[in-house]
Amino acid sequence: MSKRKPKNQRKNSKSNNSDAPVRLYGTHAVCAALQNPQRQVIKLWATANGAKTISDLSTAPELAHVTPDQLSPNELSRLVPPDAVHQGLVADVSPLPDTSLETIMARGGPIIVLDQIVDPRNVGAILRAAAVFGAAGIIVTRHHSPPAEGALAKTASGALEIVPLVAVANLARSLTTLADAGFMVLGLDERGTQTIDQIDTNQPLVCVMGAEGKGLRRLTRETCTQLVRLPTGEAGADTHNEFVTLNVATAAAITLYALTR
Amino acid sequence: MSKRKPKNQRKNSKSNNSDAPVRLYGTHAVCAALQNPQRQVIKLWATANGAKTISDLSTAPELAHVTPDQLSPNELSRLVPPDAVHQGLVADVSPLPDTSLETIMARGGPIIVLDQIVDPRNVGAILRAAAVFGAAGIIVTRHHSPPAEGALAKTASGALEIVPLVAVANLARSLTTLADAGFMVLGLDERGTQTIDQIDTNQPLVCVMGAEGKGLRRLTRETCTQLVRLPTGEAGADTHNEFVTLNVATAAAITLYALTR
Repeated sequence: MSKRKPKNQRKNSKSNNSDAPVRLYGTHAVCAALQNPQRQVIKLWATANGAKTISDLSTAPELAHVTPDQLSPNELSRLVPPDAVHQGLVADVSPLPDTSLETIMARGGPIIVLDQIVDPRNVGAILRAAAVFGAAGIIVTRHHSPPAEGALAKTASGALEIVPLVAVANLARSLTTLADAGFMVLGLDERGTQTIDQIDTNQPLVCVMGAEGKGLRRLTRETCTQLVRLPTGEAGADTHNEFVTLNVATAAAITLYALTR
Repeated sequence: MSKRKPKNQRKNSKSNNSDAPVRLYGTHAVCAALQNPQRQVIKLWATANGAKTISDLSTAPELAHVTPDQLSPNELSRLVPPDAVHQGLVADVSPLPDTSLETIMARGGPIIVLDQIVDPRNVGAILRAAAVFGAAGIIVTRHHSPPAEGALAKTASGALEIVPLVAVANLARSLTTLADAGFMVLGLDERGTQTIDQIDTNQPLVCVMGAEGKGLRRLTRETCTQLVRLPTGEAGADTHNEFVTLNVATAAAITLYALTR
């Protein structure tokens, strides 16, 4: 009898590697991770300048034992993708522990849901705005979402350590759970009849955003309590902007601003 | 006698090249430029897919004569910087004609002023939001601002052809001109006592933004009629976000949203 497990009992590579270290780069992303007690630092590389940045973080005494391997900027570049701006700091750290839907539901503040937004920079920028505006958390789809590391963490500029990021297998089911718990589940869609500034913000709110171009998937859209749109182009100069639309991260930031007024 | 002009009479390389073609890449950036009657197309390169995108623009009959040189994606990559996403389209086009301060003052809609924001992607993203919210134009400093091409145009996603971009030599003088003409000149600064949503939007408005970290230069700040700040972190979850701040392009987009309500 073969000792090999049948295919459906083998763990897929993702769950196999769920405890594998994640690589971070960039000043804010690395410093915030070093200061996060939920992270273990496995390896830290820095230029001379990067090492100085770390030692200036001495307000965090637990960092005293973290001694970076000192490398040249070019040597550091070889540890990250070709277009990555490492700013003299690269680290391998343990992944963050999973957060449950229930945890972010209890936090207060609006919840942002991303329906298959694949660009790590967009998700990172949304985390950054979520930290600034006090969002309770971000929900992403387990598939078709970028990993919580690298470019996402760099663009989040430290916010990955602050804003809970929950990956769910079945987005429509999670939205139903939120609606059943009393959240108003808004879907950002140009077909919305109300604009985002017309929403009563004295209630628990969720706002679902789709990818640029594709928008919300049908099932996601149908699970929302209400579709809303951003008010644009209703004032100001007479620009013929029929094919310029907002980047999804910009739309999310404006939504967070509007929902926290 | 030397025929060489003294240093202060020589034109600098920038003004020497003011009619030199600019290189654009990316679907929206190139297509919008091709459809802009103010541009001459000097050279156009496209992959097979890129060429199809162009021919689908047949709503613009003046494009009938523009035949791209067909190249492979890799050949196209050699025409642009290493990290540039060309999406199958690269073009050399004539620069846009200069716009005067007076022109944008007469257009209606808020004016956004960028005080030495050097990142082309940030300026491009601000142009994109400016097109969506009907800003009258963007004013930048002649020095320490990125050229209106390449990465800036790509991130602007077509908005470079729509929103006037004015480069001025003396920013404080331009702000004084605007104030003298009746504009309220707001400076976005965390020291502002009022928040941006408390501003009366029934008046001509200018909003000045500084670079991330550096903020507004002293003279710029002192020339503003009033400092205002974005209201952040006043609601929502209790996130400890003391070192996460908004990206300048996100802050500009939220400002434009707030000023066009």
